[in-house]
Amino acid sequence: MALHPAVAAVRLGVRRELQRRVPGDAVLVACSGGADSLALLAATLFEGHKLGLRVIGATVDHGLQDGSDAHASRVVEQMAAMGADETASARVHVENAGEGIEAAARRARYDVLEQMREHFGAAVVLLGHTRDDQAETVLLGLTRGSGGRSLAGMRRAFDHYVRPLLDVSRDDTVTACQVEGLEVWEDPHNEDLGFTRVRVRRLVLPLLEDELGPGVAATLARTADQVRDDVEALDALADDLFEVARARDDVATRGTAVRVDAGRVAGQHRALVSRVARLAALEAGAPSSELFSVHVDAVVSLLTEGGRGREIQLPGHVTAYRDGSDLAFRRTRS
Amino acid sequence: MALHPAVAAVRLGVRRELQRRVPGDAVLVACSGGADSLALLAATLFEGHKLGLRVIGATVDHGLQDGSDAHASRVVEQMAAMGADETASARVHVENAGEGIEAAARRARYDVLEQMREHFGAAVVLLGHTRDDQAETVLLGLTRGSGGRSLAGMRRAFDHYVRPLLDVSRDDTVTACQVEGLEVWEDPHNEDLGFTRVRVRRLVLPLLEDELGPGVAATLARTADQVRDDVEALDALADDLFEVARARDDVATRGTAVRVDAGRVAGQHRALVSRVARLAALEAGAPSSELFSVHVDAVVSLLTEGGRGREIQLPGHVTAYRDGSDLAFRRTRS
Repeated sequence: MALHPAVAAVRLGVRRELQRRVPGDAVLVACSGGADSLALLAATLFEGHKLGLRVIGATVDHGLQDGSDAHASRVVEQMAAMGADETASARVHVENAGEGIEAAARRARYDVLEQMREHFGAAVVLLGHTRDDQAETVLLGLTRGSGGRSLAGMRRAFDHYVRPLLDVSRDDTVTACQVEGLEVWEDPHNEDLGFTRVRVRRLVLPLLEDELGPGVAATLARTADQVRDDVEALDALADDLFEVARARDDVATRGTAVRVDAGRVAGQHRALVSRVARLAALEAGAPSSELFSVHVDAVVSLLTEGGRGREIQLPGHVTAYRDGSDLAFRRTRS
Repeated sequence: MALHPAVAAVRLGVRRELQRRVPGDAVLVACSGGADSLALLAATLFEGHKLGLRVIGATVDHGLQDGSDAHASRVVEQMAAMGADETASARVHVENAGEGIEAAARRARYDVLEQMREHFGAAVVLLGHTRDDQAETVLLGLTRGSGGRSLAGMRRAFDHYVRPLLDVSRDDTVTACQVEGLEVWEDPHNEDLGFTRVRVRRLVLPLLEDELGPGVAATLARTADQVRDDVEALDALADDLFEVARARDDVATRGTAVRVDAGRVAGQHRALVSRVARLAALEAGAPSSELFSVHVDAVVSLLTEGGRGREIQLPGHVTAYRDGSDLAFRRTRS
């Protein structure tokens, strides 16, 4: 029997990642019981066992829905029945510290996944985010409006975490589960239009596909890849430039918090100058959550146009000013 | 009487641009008779005359609608009545050479605007695109999917052309015209849902505002500014890197079309390496309209991973291959 293309697509994404591992490595798969992560686990078991890897299925009970503990137990049974070498379930306490319930749940989830990863000595944790999740993330980023960074979407990998399905559509994961006879859990949160992400999924993306043509989700995901490359390159180049341009020793800084040689920054592209201005302001103590582009633009004008005697007030009681050929900062502790 | 905020917003955008001019300069305003360009002309007359500039109103008849010649005559009369120092109207022949009617009309329009600019010796041509036009352009860019470049939107200025209203909302231009008693022409094309741009304006952006929160248009426009900065910086850095890494003289190129020293590119960020790969492929003769990211990615792998004996076929009968420490190209003319 020929391999179904949906199953093949999921396995291809997983295989590319697992080829980096060596026999005996443990791989942890984060599994909610939904189609994305079940298809991910099935493919990881298939590809991983061929490569001699240990595959651990892990589920997290966020305790946010009635019966979530029973659901977690079912997922553990399901993962074991699928052939996971080991399974784990952990209940977390989601505390909304003002960042919103989704963000709080994410933080709690990654905390416990990291504990599980250490417990099992897993080399890597696989996450089931698909191309559609990526497209939603890019659109959600547009609501924040911090430029390229907000459009960069989810990283393919960070620390010990990898997202092998970012090139796979959600439809393919659903089909793969059907083909493989896996019973999929439908998260009731996915129908709750109170969540912006759900409105993006159910209302915004379908309209974009209707009006702009099919393939918008794939385009958004591909765009995220390229924008992320660009942002990371410029961030790294700006780090280098900031290192070169900043004054280091106490004599050179003359007691100020941060000092930047404007001459070394002059003539660089605006994309780099504005990043250096931002890095310097952060280093001087301006809190990133309050440092907006209007502040950064003002620091850029000090860097590039000078402005003898002019001072700019930044968040966190930080003052930026020009001192000769230097951009300097001082902080008033109140 | 206090200045209406909408009129103030339009004038502010225009004033920032006109301050670069010197008395006696001529400024040409492209005016369709719609709210955006009428508000632009009114503001340019007000600010420009204070600065001693000559303000020329120019309209283009695309000949695409019944009565377009009579409309053009009305716009000329209106511009003169508003106080334009000179007015001009030109009829263009829009020939759809396969790029679509909107693109063909744009090309014909810029051709004739350039002729008018030269005729009047105008230092600059002002275009009435607003923040909403920019947001639409960014969303339309998503349908093309070429990454950051497609999201960069319209430039604030290019050659002799400037868009002073990119920070001004379309609503403000409509209100400014009402306040100033200007009779606005409603382009019937703006109601034609056969145009993707009109669907973006009438259907997509309103849904985004409803579901993601107000201010999405402003966010998209601001994002475009930042992404454009990033793309331009990386393009320029990649140009420099390509110049350094390419072999120049005939001996070094050994008869091949283009040759790049992989060692000079190694260790650079992917965003730069992929741009250099693209520049080299274009230089070797691959046509840009057929050179997709899948091709560029393959050239990148030759650059960064080597691949002795491996060859990559590119569009335009161009072959990329690795020759020792060089990435080389040859072209088979068929």
